[in-house]
Amino acid sequence: MVYRQKGLRGKRKRWFSGRQSHKTKDRMSKEKKIYKPKSVSGFPEWLPEVRRVEQQWFDHIRRVFESYGFCSIETPSIEELDVLRAKGEVDKEIYVLERLHKEEDDDSDARLALHFDQTVPLARYVAQHFNDLIFPFKRYQMQRVWRGERPQAGRFREFYQCDIDVINVDALPLHFDAEMPAIIWEVLNDLPGMEGENIQLRVSNRKILIGMCECLGITNIVEVTRIIDKLEKIGEQDAYADLLELGLNDEQLALIIEISSIKSSPSEISGLLRDFIARNDVIARSGSDEAIQTFNGGVAELETVMDQLKHLPEDAVIADLSIVRGLDYYTGTVYETVFTDDPGYGSICSGGRYDDLAGSYINKALPGVGISIGFSRLFDRLRQKGAFDVTRKSAADILMVLPNEEQRAAAAETARTLRERGYNVELYHAAQKIKKQMSYAERKGIPYVWFPPFEAGQDHEVKCMETGGQTKADPQNWEPRKEERDAAVA
Amino acid sequence: MVYRQKGLRGKRKRWFSGRQSHKTKDRMSKEKKIYKPKSVSGFPEWLPEVRRVEQQWFDHIRRVFESYGFCSIETPSIEELDVLRAKGEVDKEIYVLERLHKEEDDDSDARLALHFDQTVPLARYVAQHFNDLIFPFKRYQMQRVWRGERPQAGRFREFYQCDIDVINVDALPLHFDAEMPAIIWEVLNDLPGMEGENIQLRVSNRKILIGMCECLGITNIVEVTRIIDKLEKIGEQDAYADLLELGLNDEQLALIIEISSIKSSPSEISGLLRDFIARNDVIARSGSDEAIQTFNGGVAELETVMDQLKHLPEDAVIADLSIVRGLDYYTGTVYETVFTDDPGYGSICSGGRYDDLAGSYINKALPGVGISIGFSRLFDRLRQKGAFDVTRKSAADILMVLPNEEQRAAAAETARTLRERGYNVELYHAAQKIKKQMSYAERKGIPYVWFPPFEAGQDHEVKCMETGGQTKADPQNWEPRKEERDAAVA
Repeated sequence: MVYRQKGLRGKRKRWFSGRQSHKTKDRMSKEKKIYKPKSVSGFPEWLPEVRRVEQQWFDHIRRVFESYGFCSIETPSIEELDVLRAKGEVDKEIYVLERLHKEEDDDSDARLALHFDQTVPLARYVAQHFNDLIFPFKRYQMQRVWRGERPQAGRFREFYQCDIDVINVDALPLHFDAEMPAIIWEVLNDLPGMEGENIQLRVSNRKILIGMCECLGITNIVEVTRIIDKLEKIGEQDAYADLLELGLNDEQLALIIEISSIKSSPSEISGLLRDFIARNDVIARSGSDEAIQTFNGGVAELETVMDQLKHLPEDAVIADLSIVRGLDYYTGTVYETVFTDDPGYGSICSGGRYDDLAGSYINKALPGVGISIGFSRLFDRLRQKGAFDVTRKSAADILMVLPNEEQRAAAAETARTLRERGYNVELYHAAQKIKKQMSYAERKGIPYVWFPPFEAGQDHEVKCMETGGQTKADPQNWEPRKEERDAAVA
Repeated sequence: MVYRQKGLRGKRKRWFSGRQSHKTKDRMSKEKKIYKPKSVSGFPEWLPEVRRVEQQWFDHIRRVFESYGFCSIETPSIEELDVLRAKGEVDKEIYVLERLHKEEDDDSDARLALHFDQTVPLARYVAQHFNDLIFPFKRYQMQRVWRGERPQAGRFREFYQCDIDVINVDALPLHFDAEMPAIIWEVLNDLPGMEGENIQLRVSNRKILIGMCECLGITNIVEVTRIIDKLEKIGEQDAYADLLELGLNDEQLALIIEISSIKSSPSEISGLLRDFIARNDVIARSGSDEAIQTFNGGVAELETVMDQLKHLPEDAVIADLSIVRGLDYYTGTVYETVFTDDPGYGSICSGGRYDDLAGSYINKALPGVGISIGFSRLFDRLRQKGAFDVTRKSAADILMVLPNEEQRAAAAETARTLRERGYNVELYHAAQKIKKQMSYAERKGIPYVWFPPFEAGQDHEVKCMETGGQTKADPQNWEPRKEERDAAVA
């Protein structure tokens, strides 16, 4: 962006072209080398009217997170590559950074890489600032993350995640496992554009299935959980066949399918689980003490969590024992969130409890529970469905007409008065024909046009672009009428 | 983050350790490999209580920008390297991205690099979306940018910039040149923590000095502007010596020093310039028509801009003809912003007018004017000075005491009622001793502690942690008293 001295003569021509620039355009274009830009696949950007809705989403999510007492943190976009790999090789596609002009023999810097999630940075943050944080540490984080994977529909290489996590030292009360779904329900249900969508949070506890497998003497538990994770997708029949292939016997098979098929409202889950246990005393009979403790612990935890979710609307949250979250690192409660009329789209918001967040970085036991909204994936889905109001291309509530140059100072003063009263006001930039100024407001989707006096002593008037109504107004106390406000100022 | 099958046995132990994890800690720590993390130089991150102020800053800046009708955009963190270089080699240290697991012969992707400012991305954005934007296009942008330079005090490798720019097709009214300083004054003056700081915006117009140089037959204009740019720093005497060395004669020298020394309030600049011109008719006598037009154009533009800034407080904005913005690409109006009691800290907010934003990407003349707040640099300065209230480590306004397990549902309900009324409420997670719950509020800086009934039928009470006052309260209509509110809820 800096021109050097030798290029001055050519550049000087353009310095001074000023208002004449349009006259010399044709000549200039022949000299210019044009590098026509295009979108980079997997790196989304939005027009202002879409970005406006994106901001409303972030504002809403932040408001709900904060209303439960979560504080905000941000971490750098990068971590040292060794930090990202401290728990072993990572299966995500990582972007590493190189300085373009780095000298070849300069190895002074550690290798830096863009973070691929917000969990590893949180773990590093908690370990590094351990002595400055108050526990339980409740934080939310809404940042971009990067994954260098092949872009495909609904998948980005750069995207936003919105995470909440609670971390404590040594032990973490189940209260927080129950708080997560309540928060996420409030967030997702009230997002602008989600009015037409039906979503459902599904909660389970991994200890139940795993404890039962151990009680029944099943050794290939990972394979079993992998099949159960696909249960809804592949159906009971295929799951049967796959489990049979693993070498499970009829009793094991039937019990696993039966328990994984349990889906229940918060108020009924306890009864269903008690009933299942009573009917299948083989579990308590055949398991080791440790295995039974795992199973019973999972049952008790799920009951406690669901009991605290009874206040939510019917169908908002269910217990769904087929939820196991694949091969992830969760140890107890697990969450998924789906569109009930399109569960095949996959989970839009997932998480769970983990026993040790930051064990790779600090010699402390730091159990936690967290949940992550796949923001960009969710936002882009609704954008593509046309669920958003994208008529507002400006932040302005009011376009202040500039009647003529003589009234410029007075019009600017009126604009300032309205700004102080909380309205966003754009002062039109030139004393052009009123029709042209109004057309500008129309095209930018600015809901009100304000006409200050064309001569001293005249009245102010305001036109609502939605209703077409025009009325006298006083900058000191004007407010949009209720029916206008519904149509216009958000 | 994913464990593979062969590692299952070892991992399973930790899956189920659950609440026992603290017991097994000692044994585990001997097995664990700890990778102790540290800060990466030049990549700042804040504790929650500092991040809270940073959010207040962003909120305030956004509110002011939007109040003038600017819309928000965000661009990807990356651009194609060819886009960043479309205007020629870049002198900024660029970070390029590499996929860690990229196959060696895979050259399918264009080279991507992190953006080093928001101006190049804006230019690319405007060119790419030209047909979807309404002009004048007024946008603000608050994102991180990256520069791989050696970190030093007050300089980061990753930092936030807050930019506003207005772009138009063919010609852009001077109205916008005058709007920029008014907006920036409002932004900077009202930022939390800036109460004790005196800042000043300094405005000039490059056409004045450059036109005068041309009128006087000076050919090495870049060197002259470079010396004038340092005038305040090196003093008049050194500037004299440097200009003499360039081969300027006495008359040229005197005139350049005289005009560059002009500093004036908005209401007096016009008189000072007219007076200077009248006393020095050599300019009009000796210059070419084009050079005189440049000089006079610059004078007229500066007068117009300053005339529209008369409403600001005294000393908020001055005309300062020593401002030339180094070798940058500005063509008319230029801005700098300094701490008046520490001008040596350098400009915290700079910008100006450019004749052609996106000429490298589209065959249109797109003049613009913009200004950029060096957010992180400014924020970190005030943070280091201790200018912020950093007592709030939580977003919660109220800590809801959990009296006992029996009252959990009732306490949760009270918390929800208060949340619906706009308060941020954290429900304490366990029915521990009241003293412990209050200590938690104290340490997190939560301003109110709410005591719900310990038995049905009792009253609610609220304690203000700042004043120590405790009163009966109704969740449906409680509000902090005015004197408490000043001390507590922001």
